[in-house]
Amino acid sequence: MLENLKESVLAANLELPRRGLVDFTWGNVSGRDRATGAIVIKPSGVPYETMKAGDMVVVDAEGRVIEGALRPSSDLPTHVELYRHFPSIGGIVHTHSTWATVWAQACRGIPALGTTHADYFHGEIPCTRVLDETQTGERYEALTGLSVVERFREGGIDPDEMPAALVANHGPFAWGVDAHAAVHNAAVLELVARLALFSLQIDPTLPPMPRHLLDRHFFRKHGPGAYYGQSKTE
Amino acid sequence: MLENLKESVLAANLELPRRGLVDFTWGNVSGRDRATGAIVIKPSGVPYETMKAGDMVVVDAEGRVIEGALRPSSDLPTHVELYRHFPSIGGIVHTHSTWATVWAQACRGIPALGTTHADYFHGEIPCTRVLDETQTGERYEALTGLSVVERFREGGIDPDEMPAALVANHGPFAWGVDAHAAVHNAAVLELVARLALFSLQIDPTLPPMPRHLLDRHFFRKHGPGAYYGQSKTE
Amino acid sequence: MLENLKESVLAANLELPRRGLVDFTWGNVSGRDRATGAIVIKPSGVPYETMKAGDMVVVDAEGRVIEGALRPSSDLPTHVELYRHFPSIGGIVHTHSTWATVWAQACRGIPALGTTHADYFHGEIPCTRVLDETQTGERYEALTGLSVVERFREGGIDPDEMPAALVANHGPFAWGVDAHAAVHNAAVLELVARLALFSLQIDPTLPPMPRHLLDRHFFRKHGPGAYYGQSKTE
Amino acid sequence: MLENLKESVLAANLELPRRGLVDFTWGNVSGRDRATGAIVIKPSGVPYETMKAGDMVVVDAEGRVIEGALRPSSDLPTHVELYRHFPSIGGIVHTHSTWATVWAQACRGIPALGTTHADYFHGEIPCTRVLDETQTGERYEALTGLSVVERFREGGIDPDEMPAALVANHGPFAWGVDAHAAVHNAAVLELVARLALFSLQIDPTLPPMPRHLLDRHFFRKHGPGAYYGQSKTE
Repeated sequence: MLENLKESVLAANLELPRRGLVDFTWGNVSGRDRATGAIVIKPSGVPYETMKAGDMVVVDAEGRVIEGALRPSSDLPTHVELYRHFPSIGGIVHTHSTWATVWAQACRGIPALGTTHADYFHGEIPCTRVLDETQTGERYEALTGLSVVERFREGGIDPDEMPAALVANHGPFAWGVDAHAAVHNAAVLELVARLALFSLQIDPTLPPMPRHLLDRHFFRKHGPGAYYGQSKTE
Repeated sequence: MLENLKESVLAANLELPRRGLVDFTWGNVSGRDRATGAIVIKPSGVPYETMKAGDMVVVDAEGRVIEGALRPSSDLPTHVELYRHFPSIGGIVHTHSTWATVWAQACRGIPALGTTHADYFHGEIPCTRVLDETQTGERYEALTGLSVVERFREGGIDPDEMPAALVANHGPFAWGVDAHAAVHNAAVLELVARLALFSLQIDPTLPPMPRHLLDRHFFRKHGPGAYYGQSKTE
Repeated sequence: MLENLKESVLAANLELPRRGLVDFTWGNVSGRDRATGAIVIKPSGVPYETMKAGDMVVVDAEGRVIEGALRPSSDLPTHVELYRHFPSIGGIVHTHSTWATVWAQACRGIPALGTTHADYFHGEIPCTRVLDETQTGERYEALTGLSVVERFREGGIDPDEMPAALVANHGPFAWGVDAHAAVHNAAVLELVARLALFSLQIDPTLPPMPRHLLDRHFFRKHGPGAYYGQSKTE
Repeated sequence: MLENLKESVLAANLELPRRGLVDFTWGNVSGRDRATGAIVIKPSGVPYETMKAGDMVVVDAEGRVIEGALRPSSDLPTHVELYRHFPSIGGIVHTHSTWATVWAQACRGIPALGTTHADYFHGEIPCTRVLDETQTGERYEALTGLSVVERFREGGIDPDEMPAALVANHGPFAWGVDAHAAVHNAAVLELVARLALFSLQIDPTLPPMPRHLLDRHFFRKHGPGAYYGQSKTE
């Protein structure tokens, strides 16, 4: 079932090592079938070199395995919560990519300092609160997802305008309309994480970029007024 | 029309990913036909992997499309202003290359700290003022170009001796006698941006290099007394 | 003798340059035969490009050569002491990999700041005391190994939960159940060393991650309750 | 003439881009014929991709061209002075490699912080004084070489125990018994320059490594008591 989705989720997973976003078997990408709500996700701990579309695991919207011989990624419950609460998204990726993880370990959001950031993320990329002892108990991975949801709700952040979050002491999650878009956003996140870190080393007191420039660039690429790229309707 | 120029502008654009100066479809190179003032520029949002010479867009000196089926780069108006005000240049490149962008995001010029810098840039590589709300309105990209021009005029900077500028909160523009030279200067800019950042981390109070050494190296490679490389007339 | 072990020790050594953990002839991996206590180790100063299984040197548990035409790695006595005092380990690797060595040169342990670290190392990766003048005398390499052993004993650290150490002013040693696992741990050590360095640059006052999160991640991958990866018994 | 030396100087030059030590046509390697004192050096501004042994320029001990159709590297007079004053060396290399140049631009020597450094450099790698206005006049490149010589004389530094120097506001020179050894030392210099920079970022007050450990490692690889690598006489 969902063979096309399996192929595209596999392709998105394989893009992770090719873009230098993962090492070893780390990282995982999932995609959601909009018709049924079923989720296709990478199996846990399988090497990218030998991974096949048939290794992808299909689960229902609650994360129960429907099809697949392998265990799903241990981060599946985090994906399930994000899909549940962010209904517009169709793909999710989790990595330990270097520069985004550096910020996550520092428990800091990534401030918007330039147009590279503003082209993709409409403001500071938020970092969750550190999970307390109870939250790291049995339902740890699900509560990790909920900590992202809570951070967005409290901050009044729209997941369509902010396709990534940092989990404190852990690493980044990114998402998009599908698995491929999620990986693209994860790759851009990694770039802006590095830019922000070194810009702040030049000037530790650097304020965020002006709001008008942030808006200008975000809406140059997103929404009805976008004029970057080739017109999709031509 | 201008088929040779299209080929060389394509080649210069393809040099960007090969030198690690761009990711995805970011970045753009243009070249100017000195006879007619026409500009050949990369189309917007087209992947480098499949780009062909025929995809290049030809515009007149005012930026109006003369030939080409695709939309020109959204940064075209910036190129147009730079060509208009810097008549000696024949090629322009814009990237979000990591280390130059780090300085641009920090809204700081890159001080001349060593001979690698002095071989190409005759002094501090200037950074523009941050654009105000009005300037990020309808004519945003043109005003970005004018902010570079204004910075050079106010600083008494000669674009022939300073083939690059940083746009605050954004990234670098570089130029040269043609598109290839512009990309070469963009690549050197990236190297000196990194050198300067880490030299200042060793000693945050480091002053610029002595003026006599800056002059010695710049004029060793540029102008009538140059003696680096093989004689062009031999 | 021990031809299989020689092959696997060779393969583990060749993984070092492939993962960017060594330059030139630096670095060395050994493996231990659990039946006899014999150790197979890389020869000293031989290029990786031409190294063969037959070049591996076999020594007894005291480090005396049993078989092999070449001199063993000059760091052999360090390996011998680690095997003697850490009886559960079956492979050891020593490198001068960049980011781990940066911490070793700073004579600092690497604090546990995130889950990438916690997945492999159950707490701060310890750094030895600087060797005094007597210790850098005739038995220098053996005393280097003993300085690691002493650091673990004093700190109450279990080598099975902490498969690496930094030798002050020198570089990292890592180990595991066999030579391949040792190299895997050395590669992860390099990644977490870099993450920690830059996280602390964002916030120099950053405390270690919470103990409950450290435990959660370490025991997600290690010990009887592990649930990461595919079940070994299925 | 000197065809073998030309081949080895060419090979050493080509090692520079392969090891990531140079960009574009930057950098130059020379070798000295011990019998005649003649020097073989890379031509100025020629791309590495197309360089041939026959392009190498032969000059006498005073730097006068004996053979070759191309101009020698503009840094030739620096090489000439180093050969004149350091009679034991047989090869010299100059690069603008990133991390060594960062230190040179900061006008700081690289302190000995670990055994990677001590295996090759017997103490702090010295940086010259900044050249004054007179020194950057007509004989600039020769006086650059003499500034290195002066720095070694004043510091009581033996060029056989310290095969590299940093020229202030410029970049590194390295040397060795022949052109290949010079490039090897330049590559190690680059590694230790990076290690030192980041070790000092972890602890800006970090003192140099203990003298006894520095001596131990340097003499483990150099001089009559060396025991690293395979015995040359076996």
